[in-house]
Order: sequence, then C-alpha cells, then structure tokens
Amino acid sequence: MAGDSIGQLFRFTNWGESHGKAIGGVLEGCPAGISLSEDDLQPALDRRRPGQSKIVTQRKEADAVEILSGLYEGKTTGTPISLMIRNQDQRSKDYSEMAQLYRPSHADFTYQQKYGIRDVAGGGRSSARVTAPTVAAGAIAEKILQQFCGVSIVAYVKSVAEIEYSNFDPLVTREQVEQSVVRCPELSIAEKMIQKIEATRKQGDSIGGVIECVIQSVPVGLGEPIFDKLEADLAKAMLSINASKGFEIGSGFAGTRLSGSEHNDPFINSNGTIATRSNYSGGIQGGISNGMPIVFRVAFKPTATIIQDQQTVNLEGEAVTFKAKGRHDPCVLPRAVPIVEAMAALTLCDHWLRYRGYQNLTSE
Amino acid sequence: MAGDSIGQLFRFTNWGESHGKAIGGVLEGCPAGISLSEDDLQPALDRRRPGQSKIVTQRKEADAVEILSGLYEGKTTGTPISLMIRNQDQRSKDYSEMAQLYRPSHADFTYQQKYGIRDVAGGGRSSARVTAPTVAAGAIAEKILQQFCGVSIVAYVKSVAEIEYSNFDPLVTREQVEQSVVRCPELSIAEKMIQKIEATRKQGDSIGGVIECVIQSVPVGLGEPIFDKLEADLAKAMLSINASKGFEIGSGFAGTRLSGSEHNDPFINSNGTIATRSNYSGGIQGGISNGMPIVFRVAFKPTATIIQDQQTVNLEGEAVTFKAKGRHDPCVLPRAVPIVEAMAALTLCDHWLRYRGYQNLTSE
Amino acid sequence: MAGDSIGQLFRFTNWGESHGKAIGGVLEGCPAGISLSEDDLQPALDRRRPGQSKIVTQRKEADAVEILSGLYEGKTTGTPISLMIRNQDQRSKDYSEMAQLYRPSHADFTYQQKYGIRDVAGGGRSSARVTAPTVAAGAIAEKILQQFCGVSIVAYVKSVAEIEYSNFDPLVTREQVEQSVVRCPELSIAEKMIQKIEATRKQGDSIGGVIECVIQSVPVGLGEPIFDKLEADLAKAMLSINASKGFEIGSGFAGTRLSGSEHNDPFINSNGTIATRSNYSGGIQGGISNGMPIVFRVAFKPTATIIQDQQTVNLEGEAVTFKAKGRHDPCVLPRAVPIVEAMAALTLCDHWLRYRGYQNLTSE
Amino acid sequence: MAGDSIGQLFRFTNWGESHGKAIGGVLEGCPAGISLSEDDLQPALDRRRPGQSKIVTQRKEADAVEILSGLYEGKTTGTPISLMIRNQDQRSKDYSEMAQLYRPSHADFTYQQKYGIRDVAGGGRSSARVTAPTVAAGAIAEKILQQFCGVSIVAYVKSVAEIEYSNFDPLVTREQVEQSVVRCPELSIAEKMIQKIEATRKQGDSIGGVIECVIQSVPVGLGEPIFDKLEADLAKAMLSINASKGFEIGSGFAGTRLSGSEHNDPFINSNGTIATRSNYSGGIQGGISNGMPIVFRVAFKPTATIIQDQQTVNLEGEAVTFKAKGRHDPCVLPRAVPIVEAMAALTLCDHWLRYRGYQNLTSE
Repeated sequence: MAGDSIGQLFRFTNWGESHGKAIGGVLEGCPAGISLSEDDLQPALDRRRPGQSKIVTQRKEADAVEILSGLYEGKTTGTPISLMIRNQDQRSKDYSEMAQLYRPSHADFTYQQKYGIRDVAGGGRSSARVTAPTVAAGAIAEKILQQFCGVSIVAYVKSVAEIEYSNFDPLVTREQVEQSVVRCPELSIAEKMIQKIEATRKQGDSIGGVIECVIQSVPVGLGEPIFDKLEADLAKAMLSINASKGFEIGSGFAGTRLSGSEHNDPFINSNGTIATRSNYSGGIQGGISNGMPIVFRVAFKPTATIIQDQQTVNLEGEAVTFKAKGRHDPCVLPRAVPIVEAMAALTLCDHWLRYRGYQNLTSE
Repeated sequence: MAGDSIGQLFRFTNWGESHGKAIGGVLEGCPAGISLSEDDLQPALDRRRPGQSKIVTQRKEADAVEILSGLYEGKTTGTPISLMIRNQDQRSKDYSEMAQLYRPSHADFTYQQKYGIRDVAGGGRSSARVTAPTVAAGAIAEKILQQFCGVSIVAYVKSVAEIEYSNFDPLVTREQVEQSVVRCPELSIAEKMIQKIEATRKQGDSIGGVIECVIQSVPVGLGEPIFDKLEADLAKAMLSINASKGFEIGSGFAGTRLSGSEHNDPFINSNGTIATRSNYSGGIQGGISNGMPIVFRVAFKPTATIIQDQQTVNLEGEAVTFKAKGRHDPCVLPRAVPIVEAMAALTLCDHWLRYRGYQNLTSE
Repeated sequence: MAGDSIGQLFRFTNWGESHGKAIGGVLEGCPAGISLSEDDLQPALDRRRPGQSKIVTQRKEADAVEILSGLYEGKTTGTPISLMIRNQDQRSKDYSEMAQLYRPSHADFTYQQKYGIRDVAGGGRSSARVTAPTVAAGAIAEKILQQFCGVSIVAYVKSVAEIEYSNFDPLVTREQVEQSVVRCPELSIAEKMIQKIEATRKQGDSIGGVIECVIQSVPVGLGEPIFDKLEADLAKAMLSINASKGFEIGSGFAGTRLSGSEHNDPFINSNGTIATRSNYSGGIQGGISNGMPIVFRVAFKPTATIIQDQQTVNLEGEAVTFKAKGRHDPCVLPRAVPIVEAMAALTLCDHWLRYRGYQNLTSE
Repeated sequence: MAGDSIGQLFRFTNWGESHGKAIGGVLEGCPAGISLSEDDLQPALDRRRPGQSKIVTQRKEADAVEILSGLYEGKTTGTPISLMIRNQDQRSKDYSEMAQLYRPSHADFTYQQKYGIRDVAGGGRSSARVTAPTVAAGAIAEKILQQFCGVSIVAYVKSVAEIEYSNFDPLVTREQVEQSVVRCPELSIAEKMIQKIEATRKQGDSIGGVIECVIQSVPVGLGEPIFDKLEADLAKAMLSINASKGFEIGSGFAGTRLSGSEHNDPFINSNGTIATRSNYSGGIQGGISNGMPIVFRVAFKPTATIIQDQQTVNLEGEAVTFKAKGRHDPCVLPRAVPIVEAMAALTLCDHWLRYRGYQNLTSE
C-alpha cells in the first residue's frame, strides 16, 4: 500500500536512504529448504555497485550484504529474509546549497511538496542506491526460478543514445553480456558505446538508452487474465526503476506498424511441444506466459545529474543557477542491467508461486 | 491477488465473460455523497461499444449499465458500487471448431494450459468485451477527480499503422477528439486513418497504432517513491488493456537519444506557481506527480482476429488451417481511447485517495 | 482495503444493501474445473434465510442466488464467480421516522458520522441481509475443501442466553444439528432454547448466545507464523459477522484458569499419525493447523432491534423515544450458524490455497 | 500475504528469529514530519523485555532498538522506518535434544510439517521474542495517535488464573498499571497475582489469565462496515499474539446472557456531544468506532514451557519424555500488556489513516 513493497505471495519490502545508517529490505514468502548465503547475492550486487569500471561513477561502495534472518544452518526456513547493507560513508558533505533549491528532473520538488520534508543527503530515498537491496532480493528470486524451473534471465544494453545493437539472439548468455563493461553482447558496438559514454562524461553531460531482457524456459501459465497480466506486472516493475521512461514487450511500439497477418504468431508443433513460429507476442498471450522466451525492452532517460550550469528555482521560487558536484554516472544503463534482471526475477517468482497453489487440482 | 482487481483504497474488481449471462464489476472505496446515476456512465460506455461507427465492429450491443448498489436517493453512500451489463445475445453460435484449435496470438492456448478448461464462446474472459464495466467504473473515477480536483483526462489516437498525428497540444479537448470516428484530433490525419482502417478491413486484415493520453490539473503529490511510482501504476494499468504492447511516459523511448542537458526540465516560477519549462518528465518526477500535464503513450498491436487463412495447431498439436468468421474490429484504437482514459482515471483516483490520508498532517 | 473483501488468493468481495436492487458478491481465485451450479449454494442460503421456522423473523425472502459468471458448461473456469440475489420487495416502507434518529446499538450513528449519508431502508449496508451472498460464497469454499481435502465444518448453537449445551462431541454432524430449528444438536436442550426464544419474542425483547464450530480433517500446515495465524484470521472472520462480540479457540477464556501442566496437549502416535491426546489448542499451534479438529466459539449479543420503547436522540441530539416496528429476529443464533460455517470455509480455503503454492517444493 | 505484515496504509512487517543475528521490522506509511528517536520506543520495549522484575523470566536481554531509516534530522520523512534489535547472545546452547522431538503445545510440530525445516534455537520464529520489534512499531503508532487525536491506550492484567480484578475504571492510567510488576491496577489484587505466579514458578508450572484494554478518545468513524470492522481487525491483531486464545469486545461472552433491552446502549446528549449511557458495545457499532471508550479483553493460555516431565513423541513418532530447561516466564501476562497496547495502536493508526483519505470530502 505504502509503495515500498512489490509482489503478493513472494513480497519484497525495500527500506533505506542513500546516506542513512543502512539500506535493506525484507523478503517474505521465500520457500523453505533452499541453500542460501550472502555468496549467492554478492555477484549481482557487484554488477550493480559503483566503481566497478571506468564508465560508471567512481564512488567507492562495497555494497556488502548481510542476511539477518530466515536462515537456519545455511537453508531458508520459510520465514522472512532480512537483508541489510550498511552505508559506509555516512559523513554527509555539505548539502546546504542543495537543500535550498530544486534540482531539475530530480525528485527534490515532488518530495518536498508531498512530505513537507526532504532528506537531501545523496538524494535520500530517491537515490538509485536504494535499488541495491532489491538486486539482492532479485538474486534470491532468480536462484529459486533457476533451481525449480530452469529459468534464465539475461538483460543487456541494447542502445546508448543513438548507438544501437540491432541484432537479437534469444540464446544470449550472461557471460557474453559481461564481456564488456557496458554490458552490450556485441563487442564492436560495446566499444562505441563506451566511447560515447566517456565523451559524454568529459562534457559533464549524461545520456540514456535502452535495455533489453530475454527470459528463457518460463513455465507456461504465469500471469492472470485481467489486471495482473504478466506483462502488466513486468511493466510496473520496470517503470519503478529509477530513470526508466518506457516499457515494451515483444513487438512493442514497432509492432504497431505491422498488419495482423504479419504480426500473429502461428502455433507449431516443435518436437511434441506446442510453440510459436514467430514471437511478436514476446512470450505472453492473454496476460499468461506461453512458454516462448519473454522479451521486453526498457527505456532509460539520460541521468538528471549533469556537471553543467542549469537554471532552476529555490524554495522561494526565485530563479537560481545550479551546478552539480561530485562523481556521477554519465549513463545509468550498465549498472541498470542487474536491476532489470532483479525486478524481472521478483515478478516471475511471485507469479510462479501464485500459480503453484492452483496447479494440478484434479476434480470430480 | 487473483488479478481481477485494480487499486488499493479505490479498488475495482471486474467479473464476467463475453457470452455469459452478464459482465460487471464492483467499485469499492468510492467517497460518499457524490451524485451519481447510470447517466453519468453511459457516455463513456457508448464511446467504447461496438457498432458506433463504420470503422468498428458492426456487432450490436447496447452495453446498458445498471447500478445495483452503493446509491441512496441518487447519492453514493461510501459502500461498494455494483455495476452490471446484461449480455443481450447469449445464444452462442457454433464454437465447436474454435474449441478444437488454438487461434494464433489469442489467449486460447495459455488459458487451456493454465486452467485445463476454456470458455470458447466469444473468447470468454479474454474478450475485450469485459473492459466495458471497467470503462463504467473509470467514468466514476473521472467524475470524482473532476469534481474534487478539476482533473481532465483526454486520450486520442496518435497513430494508426504508419499514419501519425505528430503534433502535440496539451490543451486538447475531448470535443476535438470526438469530431472524428477514429478519435484523432486533427481531421485531415483522421481521414487518412479512417481510409487505412477501411482498406484493411476489406483485406480481412487488422492494424495497430498508438494512443496518447494527456491529463491536466493533476494535484502535486500523487504516487509513491519506490514500487508504486505513479508512472509504474499507470504502466501496469495500460499493459493490462487487451492488445497493448508498450507504454512510455514523457520523452519515452525517443528521450533515450537526448542528452541530460537537453532532457532536464528546468523549474520556473510561473505566476507564483513552480512549474517546469519543458515537460520531458511527463508530469511525474521521482514517482510523484509534479503538477505538470501527465503525458503518456500506449502501443496497441494489430488485433489477432483476421479474416484470412492462418496456420495453427489443434489440441492434439496437429497442424490445421483456421479462418475467423463474424464481425470484428480491424483496428481496436478508436474503441480503446475510452478504455485508456478509464484506466488512467482509476489509477489516479486511487493514488489521490491514498495521498489524502496523509495530507495536512501538522505536527509538533 | 475498503473492507468489503476477505481473503488473499481466494477472495470474496461483498456488495449490496438490504433494500437496494440486489445484493451479491464476487469470488476470485476459485480453482478451475469444479462442477458447480446454483443448486450447490441454495441449501446454505435456505438455512440462513428469514421465514424458515417459527423462531426466526417471519419476513419472506426467497434468497434465490444466480451465478452470473465463472462457469462454462457447468464447471468453474478459474475466473471470478459473480453471485447475485435480487431483492424482491424493494418498496421501502416509511423510514422517515428512523431517518431522524439513531437507534440504540445499531449502526445508524456511526454510519451517519462516517459517511454523512445513511441508507435507512432496512439498515442498508449494515443489515444482516448482506451476509446472504457471503453464505453462498462459503458454500463454494466448503465444496472445494470437502472435495480436495475431505474437510467437514459443523457449527451449532451452544447456548441461548443462560441455556447451554455443555457437551462436546467432535464428531457432531450437520444432520444432528438440523434436527431442531434452533440448531442445537441435543434435542432436549434445543427445546428449552426454542421456548426461551418464543418467550422473548412475546416480550418484544431479544437474546444472544454462543455458537460453537468444529472443523474436522483440516490439512496440517494451514496458517502463517506471525500476523496471519490461522486463529487470527478466524477471529477476524467471526468478529466481522453482525452482532458478534467475542471469539475463543480451543480452551479459550476458560483455559486461562488451567495450569500449563493441565493445558499442554501431549503428542501421541495414533496408528502412525502424530496427534495430540487432548485438544486445548483447538487444532492450531503456532498459528498453523496441526491436524486435530479446529474448535472455536463465537459470542453473539442480543439483537439491537426490540419492540419496546427505547430512549435515544435524534439527529439534532434531542432526546426522543423510539419503538421498532415490523418482524425481527428475537435471537440471531439459529440463522447465524450457516454464516459462521461460511466464514470458516472462506478462511480455510484461502489458507489452503496459499499453502499449496509452497507445498512439495523439493530442493537441492 | 506471507503473514509477516499487518496493516494496509500503515503497515508493519516483522522479521527475525529468537537466536538469529537480529530481529526487526519495517514500518511503512508513517506520516512525515514527526519528531522521533529511539528514546520514544525504548520505554515500551523495557516494559516487554525479560528480566524486568522477579516474576518474569530472568534472561538478560537489553532489547535496544536502532532506527536505521526513515528519519532526517530527527523527524520522520514519510519513508519506511527500519527497526533492528541485535540479538546479544547468539551462542546457541545445545538444542540437539529439542531438535529430535515435538514439545507439547509448542509450534515444533506444525513448523516441521509445514516447512520441512525448523529453527530450534530458542523457538526460532515462533518465539515471543519476535514481538519486540512489533512493540517498538506500536510505540510509533501510539505516538501518532496521541499527537494527532489525543488517543490513550491502557492495557492491564485483569486476571491471573482465578485471581481477578473485577472493577472497571475507564479512566485507568498507565501510571496506575505500572505501580505493580504484574501490571494490575489494584495493588491488593496485584499482590495476590504476584504470589500466585511465584508459587507457580516454584512448581515448574505455568498459568494464564486475561488482559483488558481501554482506549480513550478514539475518533468517531474508524473501521469499515463489512469485513474490516474495527473489532474484527482488533480481534485478528490480538489473536496474532503468542499464547492468546480469545478476544471479546464490550459485553463479550457475558453479554450473551443479557436481553436486548438490558444490552442496548441508549444514545444521550452529553454536553453537546452524542454519547451512549452504557457501553456494552465497547465503543464500536456496525464495525465503526462511535467515540466511546473501546474496551476489549484477551485470553492468554498458560505458557507451554514448563519445567516438568511431559510425555510427547520424537520425529519418528516414538513416545519420549521431555523436561524443559532454562529460564522461562511462568505467566506471560505482565510482559504481554505492552504487546496488547502495541497491536491495538497499530490497528487503530492504520484505520485512522485509511479514514483520513475520505474525511471532509465536500460534494456537489
């Protein structure tokens, strides 16, 4: 209700602010008996954390996660898993200037208006830093989906500004993605993206792009017919990521230019399994997964923080000039890849558990 | 949980199948004391119903809604409002062929796999017909938002296949939109769209397009910081509409090609009110409405039902040929306009009521 | 959220007012493939309806339920089941006096204060009449529990005023209960209760009592450890019934006078099944069903409507005298028995489906 | 859904096990701008913690709470408040015997059956220790209710075994309650209770009792008409407390022996405010608070842990004898008083925020 939780049976509640004592979250509804330790979560966190490569912010944060509950002798017990990441450097620098104005396209103005109070230190609750516990929870979801269903989730950077990786390989692997720091699976394109990001940083500017995500081996039957369609819950999950501005599944916006006779996915018998020849549907029909790969894309705007003079107003509504300081991401996409995967994993795992309760109910 | 409800404080639960006895829904959380009658709901239903113009399906359904509860002497009482639309022609034609195969890009296969049973009459629960009660509920939400906040919600067809209305006027009115049966506010473009739809129908084919929605006078403060961001809930609402494949807000996918210095929306003092000069943010920052117009777009695929031979498989997985019969929409967009408005109204009204509980809490 | 729904995966939403066009409800999350018709629901409704015997109100209401959705060829489809009961006699008598005052111990005052408007006809939303659709939904829940788990739910009148049936037979059957119109399984006690009720009616007064409920063959594992303990959800369900004032499970309030050495239930091996020798726990330990019979009791106050002069105030706060007219129940307990069973069935069925999603998850 | 959360708009999620690294919880939906620090929470925790007096367990646990998020410069920001209490002594003693058997009337058997795994250290998730974070969250709820509405919540021990405080003073204060370590407001009765508890401990046995709670200055209008009646949510909250077996409001079970003419609460004009002369309703009518004191009672069974030989079975179902070791509460009631208050505060604060969203909506 308060908007800090996602999921129904498998629910994650996120808490914390950028420069508070800690950030963290609570994962409810994790099945019992699963081997789990911090080592399962750290790789995803390391792919999200600052300072991991030359093209992301050079801030140093270890993002070491601690599991505080829900485990007994290395296995989950079915009770809530509490995750915590201590904020290492709580000494706030001087935020007195920022407290007096509204940074363009940040959450400063809306938080101030809604709450009458605003944690200016590092952006407080609106900082992308608070996605870290979500990534840790997503790693648990992914482990469950992999273990019980063999699901694989791979996201990658499809475009940075106008530089686009236009191929599509449904069998793309995370290893291929991780070959470049920008997380585009084709190295020649990746190199151009990296150069673009570096040039942008030198200008004190920022750029956006598109992330594509492919999910293989999804069980048939996940999603609900009307409002909790699987694509609807994925759309919500993706639009809840900081800086995201759009979501499309399967053919998406480009598919609006096709005719039905081009766009329909013919069913075929593929070695005894019913599949579709094309996949414009993106793996979901009528709100329910059909067993084909789920494919979607998420648009990310250029980050709002730029190291250039900008016009804005102060709390009194007077025009002022603002120029950000410090180390920032000129492009969020490389670090957003594991966030997209985590949100997808949380969404699918919840729907899988919701569906399980109804499966195999034989009747009169 | 079961996916037939949307909203938290202001919640709508939809029920019914295309060819069942009736379709309907229950709206919980409507404030008390609002004048309401069926006359408030019928105009929106009439804009959604079949047979309203030459470019939509020629099926005849009156879609007359009945309010069964929640009113006393013409005013809402704060108790659930039950809405019902009787299905007029329940005599099902012969669905025996359809029951034996999976129509391409329909929900036949996924419903059969998930439930082990499928209501083939008119598509059952997967029919767009079941959006009618949602449109009625949306009309109530819109009335509330208009009455208490002066909110106006206007959606229109922005493109049909490659024919696009590329202007943008934030002050577009519903009257302008209603001037053409295709619901594009520019008549010269509308005419081309109509011709395209008619040509497509003659070929037994279908086409898609994009709907844009502009919401004026949104109160500042709606939406929650993390998972229930206002754009996330709008995305979910839009992706829950039949045939939708994408959602973008503000600059959307195109904005991924701008730099931050181009994309940031400078705050200005507009006659004593803090506003932004540009609106790439689409009226939402940090998940919370900022008072600027909310602007988003929804992609709709070409409808799956086409009057052409298609390859598919039967329940046994054997290849068969299928050709649909009957009267269908070659393009869903004109009738989807009021559905987009209804889903937006339901989403905003819920967030407005959630926020109201916290407003004006003065403290020590 | 709005309080008209109960359950999570298996959720029932109730709507309607005593003298509106109809009353009804929507049941979401019913498994697919279950044979169902109105005939399955009517017996429970007939046990709840007015006019069924000489000791209940002599109003005539058929309470014929209509299933409007969720069925295909006589089987459930997994989609929402819409239930409707038309109110037969909508002609409201003269409520002008009642509209001007607050009847003692009714909902008149609180509704007026909360909503600023009040449906005075027959009590509107606060009438026990609106439990009828809930009883119909409960009959579906009971059918599911019976069919898949063999669960049996039997409630009966344990006391009317000071007349108490003090025996306890965990194997009591519904047939035994139905042998008397007061629904007490021991006929000699039942006769005294009936006499007491009749004497009370002659005085224009009312009386209360206690209903006991025994649930056999409950699967082990239903309920959650902390806030959604099975007894907590049962308590909520029972306290949501009109006129109920208390709930106790197992040893209940009397158990507070035992010592731990008397009260603890020793585990035993009963032909290969682990059971407990005594059942002070009432079938639930740590919030989770343990396979023993669930036993609880619900206190019902004397009905607020009495045919005697009562002091109260009018809307202006002035002292007035009020005397109810019409036909009323002098004792709600006989008709509350099927309501208790329905609420128990809805609660258990929801927990059973919640648990099913997690059962038999084998791990590394 | 997973049962670790309570509340809708104002929601508390509890996590942790008795002997894990820490216990804690997350409170969502706290209004912004409220002064708050650990000092506001510690008094309630100190009233709940072990070792506070001679009649409770002599274990030493400081229960020092840390607020990890949701504060900025000493005020709440409207974002989740994360609460953590480190478990001081994580060295688990030898639980190997306990791991092999099911202690009578504990959660051992049901947890093992439901989850297939069980945290035996100190009872894991089923330990009453995990109520500590709930008490801290309740202190926040109570502060909000006190600050904005002047609500006061006072619970006390009404009976210990057969020793009963039979008076009732709606103006009882927490100071009066705290005058005795057993938390009964009448000192002569309190002394008898203390003697009874001490005698019970010497026998290695345990006893139960009843806690009564009085809530003053409740705003009119809290609670919803049908399933979320205020008394229903209070009943759920109370039955979710460890060892509770019953709940009754107002006249409760005793009221079932009154006639309607005795039981009805006449409305009166009390200096311009509409009140009731008697309060058998317990402050709630039709599910909604009426402004009179809310009065309810909760039954607590004798604690399951006793220092006596008990018969039970081991994991293989074989009969074994078990005798608990260590320091335990012979009577939970003195320490349960602040838990009852906390659960009441959480429930009321949630309903108050839910209602606020609808208050003062003026209409056409």
